[in-house]
Amino acid sequence: MQKLVVRCFALSLDGFSSAPGQSLENPFGKGGLVIMDWARQTRSFHKMIGQEGGSTGIDDDFMAKAMDNIGANILGRNMFGPVRGPWADDDWKGWWGPNPPYHTQVFVVTHHARSALAMEGGTTFHFVNDGIESALQQAFVAAQGKDVRLGGGATLVRQYLQAGLIDELHIVITDKLLGSGERLFEGTDNLARDYECVETVASGTVTHVRLAKKKRD
Amino acid sequence: MQKLVVRCFALSLDGFSSAPGQSLENPFGKGGLVIMDWARQTRSFHKMIGQEGGSTGIDDDFMAKAMDNIGANILGRNMFGPVRGPWADDDWKGWWGPNPPYHTQVFVVTHHARSALAMEGGTTFHFVNDGIESALQQAFVAAQGKDVRLGGGATLVRQYLQAGLIDELHIVITDKLLGSGERLFEGTDNLARDYECVETVASGTVTHVRLAKKKRD
Repeated sequence: MQKLVVRCFALSLDGFSSAPGQSLENPFGKGGLVIMDWARQTRSFHKMIGQEGGSTGIDDDFMAKAMDNIGANILGRNMFGPVRGPWADDDWKGWWGPNPPYHTQVFVVTHHARSALAMEGGTTFHFVNDGIESALQQAFVAAQGKDVRLGGGATLVRQYLQAGLIDELHIVITDKLLGSGERLFEGTDNLARDYECVETVASGTVTHVRLAKKKRD
Repeated sequence: MQKLVVRCFALSLDGFSSAPGQSLENPFGKGGLVIMDWARQTRSFHKMIGQEGGSTGIDDDFMAKAMDNIGANILGRNMFGPVRGPWADDDWKGWWGPNPPYHTQVFVVTHHARSALAMEGGTTFHFVNDGIESALQQAFVAAQGKDVRLGGGATLVRQYLQAGLIDELHIVITDKLLGSGERLFEGTDNLARDYECVETVASGTVTHVRLAKKKRD
């Protein structure tokens, strides 16, 4: 059975996955990037951006496994870029430069049509404008038996959560405070009914928590 | 310097300190009591309700210290009881029976006047209806140099947080999901500016986090 999984999704201690004011300079909003400090110091992250060094241990283990058995990715439109509304042109090609760290087909959920965009390293961005279930269906096909990773942002993860379509959700509760921003858990009343916590592991400053869909009898 | 502290304040993983539907049978709302499981299994809690046994370790250490150097307590009206609106009579004397676990002066913040209520074991409930600062002032006096503990509920803790009056806030992030209920961190935009995380300790299923007011230069 293929799964839809969320991995390494960081939250501030007060429940926000980004601060207000997303822009080209601030993908996580103003001051929001601190919730990724735990990840950016790991060896796996260093490797991903072509650097030596970095920490090993629990945080690095989760980072290292983030792409394990992932055959396709799904992203929300705001996670793909700061551009809002219809695509004026094809200039914006994501935050990640010419060789994005996905190396799979990536399905970007958006209200606005745009042609597919092939990047270096095996990443192709497809823009899906007929809903989250269509994006998931296409991603499962593209993943060829492997799992699909939903990268974020919070709005899209919330939509998939509300629909009960996420099989595993790994969140990272950090020791950072944002005060305001975008919540992951908002209007997710079905959470208590449909999901349960299956793992809690702390690594010093952050706590890794894995939620899984409850088994139906 | 006397401090206003919050200790052992439990939250669900999705950020709620109680579920909807508080009533006489359900002080934490329907199904909400599960966020206190970690506390109820400790030796300190067993001792508090006159029972033998219970777990030792990190959770118990926090429970054991919850009343350390506390000279007075402050409670919100909903934490004192499920009664809403003006006090019809003096029948309701709190959730805790004739000998409440406070053993100090307790200031209950309410909109509605009521005479002080002396209980067994040194607890006296005072009903303060002129605001949170007045309650704090009275509690500091009653504490005679010791600290004051703010017990909850979330609404009152939030008000003191927003006013920057809490010196230390110990929260317990549990592995339980509630889906909806009352949030602690809502409209607390000042949190990032005024507070910082000074300790994160995990005990298996829950994570203890201590926030402290930032030092001003």
